[in-house]
Amino acid sequence: MGVRILSIGDELLDGSCVDTNAAWLASSLADRGLSVDSINTVPDIVERIASSLVESASQSSLVIATGGLGPTPDDLSREGLAHAIGEKLVVDDAALSWSRSRLEGRGFQFTSPQAGMARRPGSASWFPNDMGTAPPLHAKIGECDVWLLPGPPAEMKSCFEAHVLPGLPSNEPGERSWVERIRCHGLLEAEIVERLGELLDRDNPVQVGTRMSRGIFIATVHAASREQGEPVAASIEERLRPHVLGRGDVTMSSSVGGLLLEQGVTLATAESCTGGMVGACIVDTQGSSRWYHGGVVCYTNELKQSLLNVPSSLFEPGAPGAVSAEVASAMAQGARSATGADIGLSITGIAGPDGGTQQKPVGTVWISIARGEDVTSRCYRFPGDRQGIRRRALTHALQLLRLVLLGEVESASLPWESTG
Amino acid sequence: MGVRILSIGDELLDGSCVDTNAAWLASSLADRGLSVDSINTVPDIVERIASSLVESASQSSLVIATGGLGPTPDDLSREGLAHAIGEKLVVDDAALSWSRSRLEGRGFQFTSPQAGMARRPGSASWFPNDMGTAPPLHAKIGECDVWLLPGPPAEMKSCFEAHVLPGLPSNEPGERSWVERIRCHGLLEAEIVERLGELLDRDNPVQVGTRMSRGIFIATVHAASREQGEPVAASIEERLRPHVLGRGDVTMSSSVGGLLLEQGVTLATAESCTGGMVGACIVDTQGSSRWYHGGVVCYTNELKQSLLNVPSSLFEPGAPGAVSAEVASAMAQGARSATGADIGLSITGIAGPDGGTQQKPVGTVWISIARGEDVTSRCYRFPGDRQGIRRRALTHALQLLRLVLLGEVESASLPWESTG
Repeated sequence: MGVRILSIGDELLDGSCVDTNAAWLASSLADRGLSVDSINTVPDIVERIASSLVESASQSSLVIATGGLGPTPDDLSREGLAHAIGEKLVVDDAALSWSRSRLEGRGFQFTSPQAGMARRPGSASWFPNDMGTAPPLHAKIGECDVWLLPGPPAEMKSCFEAHVLPGLPSNEPGERSWVERIRCHGLLEAEIVERLGELLDRDNPVQVGTRMSRGIFIATVHAASREQGEPVAASIEERLRPHVLGRGDVTMSSSVGGLLLEQGVTLATAESCTGGMVGACIVDTQGSSRWYHGGVVCYTNELKQSLLNVPSSLFEPGAPGAVSAEVASAMAQGARSATGADIGLSITGIAGPDGGTQQKPVGTVWISIARGEDVTSRCYRFPGDRQGIRRRALTHALQLLRLVLLGEVESASLPWESTG
Repeated sequence: MGVRILSIGDELLDGSCVDTNAAWLASSLADRGLSVDSINTVPDIVERIASSLVESASQSSLVIATGGLGPTPDDLSREGLAHAIGEKLVVDDAALSWSRSRLEGRGFQFTSPQAGMARRPGSASWFPNDMGTAPPLHAKIGECDVWLLPGPPAEMKSCFEAHVLPGLPSNEPGERSWVERIRCHGLLEAEIVERLGELLDRDNPVQVGTRMSRGIFIATVHAASREQGEPVAASIEERLRPHVLGRGDVTMSSSVGGLLLEQGVTLATAESCTGGMVGACIVDTQGSSRWYHGGVVCYTNELKQSLLNVPSSLFEPGAPGAVSAEVASAMAQGARSATGADIGLSITGIAGPDGGTQQKPVGTVWISIARGEDVTSRCYRFPGDRQGIRRRALTHALQLLRLVLLGEVESASLPWESTG
């Protein structure tokens, strides 16, 4: 039976707050080989909190609830717990004096709402909160361990690590405690499914979960041990090569940065429709000054000419125009020569909603990579709205750069590629 | 009875993904005066999906589920729905041909996993998905309307707005059906609470909700009518001036763009530690070519000199150095002269984790705005990690530009400002 998480608070149900606590808890539990069975979000209503606690405790041996332990009238998790186990709330003198000395030590007055935080159901225990003033509580509902943790993320994390984590069971041998993530970009999900084939079967001993996040495909391998999981992870990498970015927390930016560093080459960018997104993404990775010089954002044709030396003739009537192989190529070369970098990367396209034509509809984007005298240019026709087109232009530009660096650009699949 | 939201997916239960869909849906429903009663997150297991659908449908007249509609074997929401209503999945020919033409029109092969997305329970209906290839489904479980929407946020939002929203009940007269949002940047939350004072009382007839989202403060006014709500909205704007960005869907980018357009001036950027984030943010707003020329990403000191004419003497030992008022100012002037724009905006700072010194610790950022010969420079010391520092540099740079354009820069509060 997996762990159950209960997220308590009206602010989670009216959309004013995204529940990041649940994901953090789930991830910390997964690191210990414990799986979460469900996450339930309920409002600040005593009966709802109580019934969710009772229901969750009947289905699990560990329930972790967050939120509703503060001093305001809508903090009702203590009351919910008392209701769930059929006890009254009593003031805990030790919690009261802990709370009082904590507040007064910081120069605050100790008021009655704060004193209310020292109450607990008779059979429950309280624990100190190193990051705040609301003490977390532990109680038993039947055989199930129930924890109430404060809602503010910093307090929740600190209380979890100090009080819940030490009591968790170690990984059982035989459970799926080895986890590896493999990230991949530039293959359609359906193609990935075909390539991974039987590795995705739901009844394999090594389980492979899949999801897409902002254009990045993530395969998560769950196995009992490295010995069991590693061959599957390696097989996934092999089947998705050369589109695999790497393992673990790798990003598009860190994958590109790693390749540039490995090959000892530097990069400059020339961006039109993306307005600086590529540069911003590259410098996400610390140490990027070792492989990135900078570049030019040339949103106007004039800047393409004056800063990047793109010939003005390319913009004349009847000429290829701003969104063309010729201009993309000249921009990439211009980025190199303006900055002294080894490689120039350029993007020019039509992100819309205006500016499309029949021949060059919204979504048409040219991307060029210039390395020495060699220029690789590709045209894409991306779907989506203005943001979606630009985000795809960003990731596909970085993937095109990876493929050029890997020498795989001719053989690789390039979704959304168009003849221009 | 409130709406019930069901979030489906193993990735939500192993901590690899934060559920932002539920909060977005809850917020959109709240705008229509509908409240969410609970959010339940369940794994990709047919029986669990089915039992949650049945249980939710018994407690509500509207259930919205997200996730699990893709082509991979762990996308099982269609199966869950079929199980819940005791029907078989059938292939919908219209959905199949929609899906096929959508894919083939883009030059992709139509494969059997994709064909699987055209299946639906016999009594369910499918709808097109403008942002993807997985069709959303609608079905009845008893009297309850059940929607299955795709999990990727852009697809989920588009499907919700196109298909679910039009069928939602209008607000009852007498409820708080007039909703206005006011966005504000650059005041600390505690200062905002003080300025808004009694407007935030929970028993006012006009309710004001507050939240922070990525540094932007959002006040949401709920009133029975425009007549009732407008004075409160106007009072909020007055009390938070000049930090108010505007109403409704205004963003930092559209607010800056609106002011530049109104004043008939153009902008260029010179970015160091932000690597292009300001440019990328400005071109988020459509039509930005009317007020934005482009600029330079100068991640190295050499590019600051060669592309922006920053004097090399400023980088010599004992000179102010790259992160200084002098360099920021020269960068902003250089951005103007290199591009011909009326206004130059520059950012140079230390985003960390390396590169800090005792005098210029990580988080030190200089921002300059050059308008004609006038240059406004400010030093900030931002908290947070590399991403947090750069994100704050972005929003505070755009807010500084707004304040310069409004002529309010001398009187306005600038959090995190430092003496440099």
